[in-house]
Amino acid sequence: MRKMRRKGLASMAAQTAASTTDSTTVDLGPAAALSCRECGHRVPLGPVFACEECFGPLEIAYDFSAYEPEDLRKRIEAGPANIWRYAPLLPVPADVADKPNINPGWTKLVKADNLARELGVTGGLYVKDDSGNPTHSFKDRVVAQALEAARVFGFTTLSCSSTGNLAGAVGAAAARAGFRSCVFIPHDLEQGKVVMAAIYGGELVGIEGNYDDVNRFCSELIGDPAGEGWGFVNVNLRPYYAEGSKTLAYEICEQLGWKLPDQLVIPIASGSQLTKIDKGLQELIKLGLVEDRPYKIFGAQAEGCSPVSVAYKAGHDVVRPQKPNTIAKSLAIGNPADGPYVLDIARRTGGAVEDVNDEQVVEAIKLLARTEGIFAETAGGVTVGVTKKLVENGVLDPSLTTVVLNTGDGLKTLDAVAGTGLTATIRPNLESFREAGLA
Amino acid sequence: MRKMRRKGLASMAAQTAASTTDSTTVDLGPAAALSCRECGHRVPLGPVFACEECFGPLEIAYDFSAYEPEDLRKRIEAGPANIWRYAPLLPVPADVADKPNINPGWTKLVKADNLARELGVTGGLYVKDDSGNPTHSFKDRVVAQALEAARVFGFTTLSCSSTGNLAGAVGAAAARAGFRSCVFIPHDLEQGKVVMAAIYGGELVGIEGNYDDVNRFCSELIGDPAGEGWGFVNVNLRPYYAEGSKTLAYEICEQLGWKLPDQLVIPIASGSQLTKIDKGLQELIKLGLVEDRPYKIFGAQAEGCSPVSVAYKAGHDVVRPQKPNTIAKSLAIGNPADGPYVLDIARRTGGAVEDVNDEQVVEAIKLLARTEGIFAETAGGVTVGVTKKLVENGVLDPSLTTVVLNTGDGLKTLDAVAGTGLTATIRPNLESFREAGLA
Repeated sequence: MRKMRRKGLASMAAQTAASTTDSTTVDLGPAAALSCRECGHRVPLGPVFACEECFGPLEIAYDFSAYEPEDLRKRIEAGPANIWRYAPLLPVPADVADKPNINPGWTKLVKADNLARELGVTGGLYVKDDSGNPTHSFKDRVVAQALEAARVFGFTTLSCSSTGNLAGAVGAAAARAGFRSCVFIPHDLEQGKVVMAAIYGGELVGIEGNYDDVNRFCSELIGDPAGEGWGFVNVNLRPYYAEGSKTLAYEICEQLGWKLPDQLVIPIASGSQLTKIDKGLQELIKLGLVEDRPYKIFGAQAEGCSPVSVAYKAGHDVVRPQKPNTIAKSLAIGNPADGPYVLDIARRTGGAVEDVNDEQVVEAIKLLARTEGIFAETAGGVTVGVTKKLVENGVLDPSLTTVVLNTGDGLKTLDAVAGTGLTATIRPNLESFREAGLA
Repeated sequence: MRKMRRKGLASMAAQTAASTTDSTTVDLGPAAALSCRECGHRVPLGPVFACEECFGPLEIAYDFSAYEPEDLRKRIEAGPANIWRYAPLLPVPADVADKPNINPGWTKLVKADNLARELGVTGGLYVKDDSGNPTHSFKDRVVAQALEAARVFGFTTLSCSSTGNLAGAVGAAAARAGFRSCVFIPHDLEQGKVVMAAIYGGELVGIEGNYDDVNRFCSELIGDPAGEGWGFVNVNLRPYYAEGSKTLAYEICEQLGWKLPDQLVIPIASGSQLTKIDKGLQELIKLGLVEDRPYKIFGAQAEGCSPVSVAYKAGHDVVRPQKPNTIAKSLAIGNPADGPYVLDIARRTGGAVEDVNDEQVVEAIKLLARTEGIFAETAGGVTVGVTKKLVENGVLDPSLTTVVLNTGDGLKTLDAVAGTGLTATIRPNLESFREAGLA
C-alpha cells in the first residue's frame, strides 16, 4: 500500500518539474538543494516533492557553513517579531521581510503555572499558543513559507486541499501577496469554515465528495495543463511548506532563553509538524545556538484517529491507516504521511505517542481555558489532554520543563464545546441575583 | 438628561469608595491621582470613577517628571513584546510584566499597500490590527489594565456588563490571574459569544432584559453589599480600564519609527478609545518621544448607531442618544459617554466624524480581506468603510500617512458576512473543473 502511494507521488513529481522553468538559479537563501529523506539523493531546488530514485519525500538541504553562533544569535534577536527573524535558517530570500506576506509567528510562550498546579507539573510548564497567528492557526507558518517558494518558482495561483485552517491561511496569504488563490474543500463543510475561507475573495471550490476525493482531484490537477502555474502549498510546494514548522522549535528555544525544553507535547495530523520541530531542534544544536542535551518528543492524537499512537503502542514501525471519527477534525488524517518518522523520533528521543478520547479533549479545552485563559481548538484539547494522561501514567516527568503546543483557535471549533453556556439566568434585580445564589 | 446620568454616577462612586480600604498608599507606578476631566478636582487613587464635586468623569493624572526622552525610549524598546513595554506610562506597578495577566498588545501595524491602491491613498496607509490580541479584540488592552487595578485595590472578583468582546476578555484575564469572574450579559445573545464567554469557567449570568437592563443591574450591584470585593472593569475600575487604549497610540507611533501619523481613523462606541488615543499621542509629544506636529483624528460610526456623527455634522456640542440598529454590535452604544469629548477632539485636530451603512460595512470587511488578508469584525468594516468615504468626499487627505484601526475579529461576527461562500461546486474530476470555467 505504502509503495503504491509513493509511486503515484513520484509520477506526479516528474510531471510537475517538467512544467516549470530551470530551478538551479533560484534564490532561497541558505536552501541548497532538495534531498531525499530515505536515500539522500539530491536534486536542485524546484517544485518537486518526491524522490525520482526511491519515491521518498524530498526535504530542504541547507548550507549553514558560514554561520558563527554568536553572530547568528544577534542577527536573529535583531530581526522582526515574526518568523522572518529566522530567515537565515529558512528556504527564503534574505530580503523576505520586505515582501508582502502575512508574517506569522513570534506567538506567545505562556508560562502556565495554574495548569501546572492542576496537572502536578513542577519543572515548568509552557503553552506555545499559535492561536495568535494572523488567521489563528499554525498553518500561517507553513503557508508563509510556501508563498515565498511560489513567488520564486513563478507560480501565480496559490492552491490547496483543506478542511478548514489551511484554507483560511492560503486565502489570506494569497490576498496580501497579490496571488490568485483557488482552494478546494469538501462541498458540505460547516458554514463558519466556509465563510472564513471565502472572505479573502479567492476561488473557493466545493468538491462533491469527501476530503480524500478532494485530495485525489488536486493530484490530478497538478499533472494536468490546467494546473500549470499553480502552487499547491501542501503538494508540489510541500518541501518548502513543511519547513515552516521548524520556526516553532526556534521560537520555543529562543523564548526559553536559548535553551532546549526537556519535553515537548506535539499534535500529530500528517506528522510533518512533529518531524520538522525535531529537525529545528537538531539544527539549533548543530549551529551551537543551544546546548546539546537530551529532549523528549511526545506525539498526541485523538483516539478517533490514532494510527500513530496505535502503532507506537504495538511496537510497529509502520502505520496502519484508520477511518477518522473524532471531533479533532484538524488532526483527522487517517493515513499520516510522516507517521513512520514520528515513531522513529518518539522512540529515539525517549518520548511516546498517546491518545485521548473526545470527552477528554473537551475536558482539556475547558481545563486550559479555566486555568490560563487560552481558548484552544480541539487540537489543543488533544495535546493538553495527552499531557495530563502522560503525567498520570508516569510517562511524562513532571519535574522537567515541558512545552505543550496549542496549534489553533477555539473560535473555529465552537461546536465541540457547544454545551458550554450560562451558569444562571436571572431577572435584572438584586433579589433575583440573591435567589440564584450568586451573592 | 446628561445631568441626571451624572448624578447617578456620583452617588455610585461614593458608595464604591466607602466599601474599600484606604487607597492613598497604592502602588500604580506613575499614576499619581485621579483628576476630574471637567473641573480638575483631584482625589487619591481608588476604585471611583465620577467626580464628587461636579459629577464629571475621573481619569488618571500621572507624574512623568522624572523621565528623560532618550532613556525612556530605550527602556520601552528593551521591554516585552506586549503593552507592558509601556509600563512607565501606565497606571500599573513597575513589576507588572511578572504578574499573571493575558499580556495583550504589540499587535501588527500592517502596511496596507493593496488597500491604499484601491482607495487612492498615496501617503502610506496602515491597518493597526488588534485581532491579534489574546481574545482577538482590543478589549484585552483595557481589561489587562483593569485587572492590575483590581489586584492593587484588593478585589477578588472581576466583573462587567457586556454583549460579547468584553465578556471574553474579562473571562480570560480573570482565569489566568486566579480571580473569580462574574460576567453579565443579555440572556439571548448569539450562541458563539456565549460559548466564548463561558469557556473560561467563570460565572456567566444571563439577564432577562436588554443591554440597558444589564447595565442598570450592574450599577445597582455596585452599590449593594453583595457587590463588595467586585471590580467592574467598565464601571468602578473605568479610569484604569480606559487607559489601556493609550497603548494603541504608543504602539502606532513606535511602529512608525517614533513618528506621529498624519491621520487616524478610529471607531466610536462609548468614544473612550478615541479620547484615550488622543491622550496617548499628547503624552508622547510632551515627553519628547515624537516630534510635535499636527495630526487629525477621524471618528467612525455605523449609520444605524451614529449619535456622534449626527452631532458632528449638525455642529452640535452635545450628543442626542439613539436606539441602535446596526450589524456593528460592538459599536452599538446609543448614548456614548465620551461623545462630547470626541466632538471636541475631531474639531480641534481638524478631523471629522463620519458613518457608513450596514451594506458599506460588509463591503469594507470584504475589501480589507481581499486586499490585505485581514478578516475584521464589523467594527473594522466601519473604520475601513468610513476611510473610503472620507477619501471619496475629499475630507481625508490621501497624500498623508493614515492609520486605520481594526479592533476585532471577523470570526466573532460571522453572521454579518454569512452570504459569503463557495464560488463553485464541482464533481471531483478535471472535466467538471473545466466546465465550471476554472481552468
